[in-house]
Parts: sequence; structure tokens; C-alpha cells
Amino acid sequence: MAAGRSRLLRYQVATSLDGFIAGPNGEYDWITEDPTLDLKAFARQFDTLLMGRLTYELALSQGSMLESMGLKVVVVSTTLDPSQHPDSTIISTDVAKKVAQLKSQPGKDIRLFGGGALFRTMLDAGLVDRVELAVSPILLGSGVPVLPPGKRCPLRLVESTALPSGMMILMYEVKF
Amino acid sequence: MAAGRSRLLRYQVATSLDGFIAGPNGEYDWITEDPTLDLKAFARQFDTLLMGRLTYELALSQGSMLESMGLKVVVVSTTLDPSQHPDSTIISTDVAKKVAQLKSQPGKDIRLFGGGALFRTMLDAGLVDRVELAVSPILLGSGVPVLPPGKRCPLRLVESTALPSGMMILMYEVKF
Repeated sequence: MAAGRSRLLRYQVATSLDGFIAGPNGEYDWITEDPTLDLKAFARQFDTLLMGRLTYELALSQGSMLESMGLKVVVVSTTLDPSQHPDSTIISTDVAKKVAQLKSQPGKDIRLFGGGALFRTMLDAGLVDRVELAVSPILLGSGVPVLPPGKRCPLRLVESTALPSGMMILMYEVKF
Repeated sequence: MAAGRSRLLRYQVATSLDGFIAGPNGEYDWITEDPTLDLKAFARQFDTLLMGRLTYELALSQGSMLESMGLKVVVVSTTLDPSQHPDSTIISTDVAKKVAQLKSQPGKDIRLFGGGALFRTMLDAGLVDRVELAVSPILLGSGVPVLPPGKRCPLRLVESTALPSGMMILMYEVKF
């Protein structure tokens, strides 16, 4: 984190050109792989992952995925038993307040990870600073939307990069 | 049209970042205006507009909009009476065959205009050559999708341009 710069909550996700983060049956097979994308450099910008319970359980089911990312894990859930998840922080009440506290602590940026439901909650609470999409060159026609229905979210384009695979990296600031 | 180059059917439309061409109540007020976008230069690439009945009736209701565009108008409709629309060509049967014939005639490119339903029909018939989106920097959350549900459509990125307003011009070829 640069001196004087606040810690940001950044929603970073792969989408189709028509705004889906997964196919109608949860498929991810359409996501373009691009060897020029420096995923490690991206990962070094974060020290914390914020996710909902569904994403967390999906990640746990994939074995050591979360450990290998080496990040602090914060899960928003009203049903998980914290004593069963000693390696993670479980937030079950006052979610907006606690995420705001997390952002006010020193550290690298926080990555909002996984599905769109928590993105909607955090967006409506005014807590999301950036939306960063890796847009694969495909139209899916249906699937899991990048943002569930609700109020509009105007953005400010910060950066755009076309990768050799045809993937577009589009980075936006959320306008409050 | 450059010599030796086939006449292309190009779907050109303004979308939100999450893939909607209109809001849930048909709103267009979110579309970014960008004074650097040379709409006349775009328009000069076409001599024909292909549209469905709903788009056609919407355009007619806006007075001289279609006339002012100065293009040949082709409408796909099973209900319109051709004798009532002498200035337009109405296609009511063998749509794919007739659009293919239209593409085989000499001329500039054909712009697929308006809603996503005809885009889906033309795409599934293998007749769309390019998808060209002007993506405004906003997430709408819900609305009219750029492509109605159906099979996937893989694309090839041809060109991307970030405009000063934050609008992204993204041009793709359809992979057959």
C-alpha cells in the first residue's frame, strides 16, 4: 500500500462480454486463458480475500486453494460456526460496519472474491472502490450475472488493456 | 466496400458493462455521450439497416429518424403489410435465405439495428459477421440483454478503443 492511500475493496472477476461470471449451470470452461496475464503480480496487490459462504465452501472443496493463495480469509456468513473455521474470520452480524473497519486497518488491498451476491451487498453499502473485469471474447446468452438486480452503479474507466488472447482487462472506479 | 471483401452483417449497439442494451423499463438515459465518437464515419460504412418489427415501429414513431439516416431499410416481420410500407423491404418468410441473398448483393455493410431478438435469430443462422459494442461505464443490474438466451457465441477481438468519456468501443468477429 502506498503511503497515504486508503486500502481499497476491489471486485475482480472474469466475465463474458454479456456480463456473466458463470454459465447457466455454473460453467467456467469458457474463460479465456492468457499466458501474458501476470496473475502473480495481481495477487501481490492483495493480502485479504473477502467472500460469501458459497464461494468459501467451493474454495474449501478444492483442497488447498485458499492456503496456496496465502491471504487472510474473511467470510460473510450467518450460518458458519467460527470454531470450525479457525483459519478464517467469519463475519455474521453488522457486515457493512465490520468490512468498513477492515478497510480502515493498515494493509494491502482487499479482494472481493467470487459470486455477485456479496458484490451487490457491498456495493449498496458504498464499500466497493473498484470493479476490475477480465472480459473473455464470448457471448454466453445466459448464466450467473456479474451483478444481481438492484440499483444502477455508475463507474469511471481507469484503465483498459487488450490481451493477445482477446481478453479485455477493464478497470473501473466506483463513483459514489 | 473494399474490392474482394464480402458485405458484412454487423450488430452495432450500445451496452452497459453488464451486457444490457436497455434498462428494465426500456431506459436509454444511461448511455454515455462521447463527443469524440464519429457517428457519421460509422454511418458511412453502411447502406442498409436490418431490423425487427418492434425496432422499426419505434423508429417510425420517432418521425423522420429512418429517413434522416438515408439508408435502405429491411424489416423482418410476419405481420406488417408491405403495401403499407412502400419505402421499406419487408421480409416475412425464408428470413435466413433472404438475408443471405441480401449479403451476397453488392453494397456497403449491413447494420443489424435494435433489439437482441433478431440478433439471436441471425446469429443462430450463421449470418452475423461482427459484434460491435459501445460499452458505457455503468452496471445496470437488470434490463434487456444484448443477446437473448441460447447457445454460446465465441468471438475474436478485432479492435478496442477507450474514449475520453470512459466508453469502450469493442469490435469482435463472430467465429463460425
